[in-house]
Amino acid sequence: MSASFTLAELAECCGAELQGDASCRIHGVETLNNASSGQISFFSNPRYRRYLENTGASAVILRPSDAKDCPVSALLTDNPYLAWARVTHCFAADQNAGKGVHERASIDADARIDPDALVAAGTVIGAGSHIAANAYVGPNCVIGRNVMLGEGSRLLASVVLMDGVRIGKNCLVHPGAVIGSDGFGLANDEGRWEKVAQLGSVVLGDNVEVGANTTIDRGAIHDTVIHDGVKLDNQIQVAHNVEIGENTAIAACTGIAGSTRIGAGCTLAGGVGVVGHIELADGVHVSGASVVSRSLREPGVYTGGVLAMPHKTWQKNMARIKQLDNMARRLKALEKSLAELQDKPDTIEE
Amino acid sequence: MSASFTLAELAECCGAELQGDASCRIHGVETLNNASSGQISFFSNPRYRRYLENTGASAVILRPSDAKDCPVSALLTDNPYLAWARVTHCFAADQNAGKGVHERASIDADARIDPDALVAAGTVIGAGSHIAANAYVGPNCVIGRNVMLGEGSRLLASVVLMDGVRIGKNCLVHPGAVIGSDGFGLANDEGRWEKVAQLGSVVLGDNVEVGANTTIDRGAIHDTVIHDGVKLDNQIQVAHNVEIGENTAIAACTGIAGSTRIGAGCTLAGGVGVVGHIELADGVHVSGASVVSRSLREPGVYTGGVLAMPHKTWQKNMARIKQLDNMARRLKALEKSLAELQDKPDTIEE
Amino acid sequence: MSASFTLAELAECCGAELQGDASCRIHGVETLNNASSGQISFFSNPRYRRYLENTGASAVILRPSDAKDCPVSALLTDNPYLAWARVTHCFAADQNAGKGVHERASIDADARIDPDALVAAGTVIGAGSHIAANAYVGPNCVIGRNVMLGEGSRLLASVVLMDGVRIGKNCLVHPGAVIGSDGFGLANDEGRWEKVAQLGSVVLGDNVEVGANTTIDRGAIHDTVIHDGVKLDNQIQVAHNVEIGENTAIAACTGIAGSTRIGAGCTLAGGVGVVGHIELADGVHVSGASVVSRSLREPGVYTGGVLAMPHKTWQKNMARIKQLDNMARRLKALEKSLAELQDKPDTIEE
Repeated sequence: MSASFTLAELAECCGAELQGDASCRIHGVETLNNASSGQISFFSNPRYRRYLENTGASAVILRPSDAKDCPVSALLTDNPYLAWARVTHCFAADQNAGKGVHERASIDADARIDPDALVAAGTVIGAGSHIAANAYVGPNCVIGRNVMLGEGSRLLASVVLMDGVRIGKNCLVHPGAVIGSDGFGLANDEGRWEKVAQLGSVVLGDNVEVGANTTIDRGAIHDTVIHDGVKLDNQIQVAHNVEIGENTAIAACTGIAGSTRIGAGCTLAGGVGVVGHIELADGVHVSGASVVSRSLREPGVYTGGVLAMPHKTWQKNMARIKQLDNMARRLKALEKSLAELQDKPDTIEE
Repeated sequence: MSASFTLAELAECCGAELQGDASCRIHGVETLNNASSGQISFFSNPRYRRYLENTGASAVILRPSDAKDCPVSALLTDNPYLAWARVTHCFAADQNAGKGVHERASIDADARIDPDALVAAGTVIGAGSHIAANAYVGPNCVIGRNVMLGEGSRLLASVVLMDGVRIGKNCLVHPGAVIGSDGFGLANDEGRWEKVAQLGSVVLGDNVEVGANTTIDRGAIHDTVIHDGVKLDNQIQVAHNVEIGENTAIAACTGIAGSTRIGAGCTLAGGVGVVGHIELADGVHVSGASVVSRSLREPGVYTGGVLAMPHKTWQKNMARIKQLDNMARRLKALEKSLAELQDKPDTIEE
Repeated sequence: MSASFTLAELAECCGAELQGDASCRIHGVETLNNASSGQISFFSNPRYRRYLENTGASAVILRPSDAKDCPVSALLTDNPYLAWARVTHCFAADQNAGKGVHERASIDADARIDPDALVAAGTVIGAGSHIAANAYVGPNCVIGRNVMLGEGSRLLASVVLMDGVRIGKNCLVHPGAVIGSDGFGLANDEGRWEKVAQLGSVVLGDNVEVGANTTIDRGAIHDTVIHDGVKLDNQIQVAHNVEIGENTAIAACTGIAGSTRIGAGCTLAGGVGVVGHIELADGVHVSGASVVSRSLREPGVYTGGVLAMPHKTWQKNMARIKQLDNMARRLKALEKSLAELQDKPDTIEE
């Protein structure tokens, strides 16, 4: 974080238009209301407009239409958060860099490590696997046999890739993730379970991110497939033969059961559950902790669940949940009776 | 996957009756609708009957009653999926095989590794532990002190077994699983939490499977017990002193709280939550994402939760959830009033 | 577990008043109904009173007011479970003890390991990190750069601490936990996601416990903060910039989304989901599997969800959930019509 940049350099880095002091030196990033001199901030959500006028930042990334409200230098762009994302990388610590295989990594003689890849201590790589140029395999990873790790992809630490997993370019896999473990395939033999061998593998496209302790199972016959640009948060479970479409983003603690296909450009919020053997169309957005039990063929926002409330309120109302059908029937009966009654008085009035 | 077998060999492997060309060579497995010559498939679910008549497979595993509809050679059995499970193993890649301890494993001088066991690089094994014959301990596992790993059991990679854990024969533990971590036992001291030492351990029977990143806590006083033939998927949490009966299968992301007893032959679908100190009878089946809050003493299927729907539908209806009790009371009041009214007109008619 | 203590010693250890035979030797702990001679038990929950009178234990920890019902020696205290917690530690196996760095640990030349710390085999520690006195780093851990692990803190096995994480004194981190992985920060560029660098870190106070396979993400700009005395169970997900107040305890499988602040002295039961950018006041208690979607500004118990019931009951009643708003409207209409009807007969009677 000791790097510093001129505003002109940052404007170029994030593709924004500079308004103000091009030579102003920026040493770091901060939120609007905490920033001080030498720091850059961003303004996107109108909710925080009050922080803009009083910001101590030396520069703010914002929309051209907000430029008039900015009391300091500005980087103007139609997508301030995207420009912000790019600027943050200027101030990120250096990644583990370098080349070569640590003397305490255990590499099978039949594995192929590109001379421009870096393999850290404690990592074990099996026969037939290939680590491409500029890939990084952090400490204590386990890579099975016949695995392909693409150019520029990074396994940060303690990642496990089982036999035959293929990972594209510029992927990022966080610690503790397990890719290519067996799918949960069981046949029942008079009460006892017998394992179905999981003969498929897992294929990740390019620019995929996999969060800490997330698990992606190998397919039963065909592969489990994660397309380009998919972003998976922590502790997600992806079962065998799931397919996730391009640029879909899934938040933590979500589980997707076997053979389900999630479309492109979807978002699943945290803690979502999706049953097996269904399809979610492109552009489906599922709210947090919702359970999806059938195919969703139209894009849109879907939600389920009963949210937390004071316990007594919950208790009183949930006691009625099992009466719901009964209530619906009684309501209908009442409507009928009332309609009959409403007819009757007319007769009487005659 | 380069192995090939005659149909006669596969029939014997899976205990099915051969109908057709005994010498036909099978090189792999495929689904009915994707299979081509040299591949075997199976037919069990009537939904896929249309794929049967047009299959390109050289042979199909199916029930005797479906044999007449099979256009190619057949393996006949009353349980096609079980036969299929057995056939898949013929085509699975070889398991890590061999004997001996990798020079980069760190084995305590007081640990006992059977000469027919295989211990991979990066694994650490503590004093007093015993790895039995034909067991496999994959790379970067950690095995504490006084652990027993039974004959033929396999820890695939980065598995942690804490002190005193005992695992039976022919178990399979997937990467990242942690068995024997402390149960969550805390005593409150005027607001501060003080830890209760977890003095029990974890015992797994034979033929147990434990999924990737699943955690099984050690007991507080007695052991947490997982009986023979239990199958646990990925990212399951089993708390201290839980007991899971024989041949119960539990899907991913399920959590079971402390001291709960799950019967034999149960199935818990994905994302289920089970509270502590309750009992589920043998043969209980819990649907995905359901929360079980009390003992279920009868076998059967149990379900909970409000499934996902279009957000606006959800919003409109859930706004009424806190009025449910009120609605029930008003409904009852209406019924009473209406009954009174219905009596009244009679009087008028007199 | 071969240690033994006199009752007098145990009374002193847990701060209880001794009633009975001070020299009685205790060899272990047991539950009231399983205990035999030489064992100590405790009695706190009135539900188990029947076990007290018949206990085979040599001594029981209980409240002074229950002393008269205790047939054996007693340790008297107002908080029997707390005294029990302390006594359990007398019978716990020795922790991994000793000093020094295992020859198979890989320590960067610029890391500083206190001579009174113990670092086990297979662990990798990066430049600029500091392991304080009496800290324990178990096998196969990965510690990044510039990490601070405080005095007496223990990482049991396969724990990952990413760059810059700071952990206080006497913390306990269970296997497979990942602390300091990237928060899930993404900016959207016309459908594609671009990563926001996560420039904050994670700070844990003193006496924090982190369960197996739990993940705590680093902050985007500022740090994720876990205050003193917080206890986290297994498989919990704490997103970036979350803050958890002192002595809050959270059970397994709970997920907390980004920038949410949980107060002090809270309890979250298992499987809870908390959305991002909200606040839970001190003393909030959330029931298992509840989803918290808005700030809870008052202490108290909060609950959500529809619990499991027989599947047919669920099916019948949940079919009505989407009619709830419609039912509420019809109910209101009925009330109105009935009120009109109730007026009418009076007119007729005139």
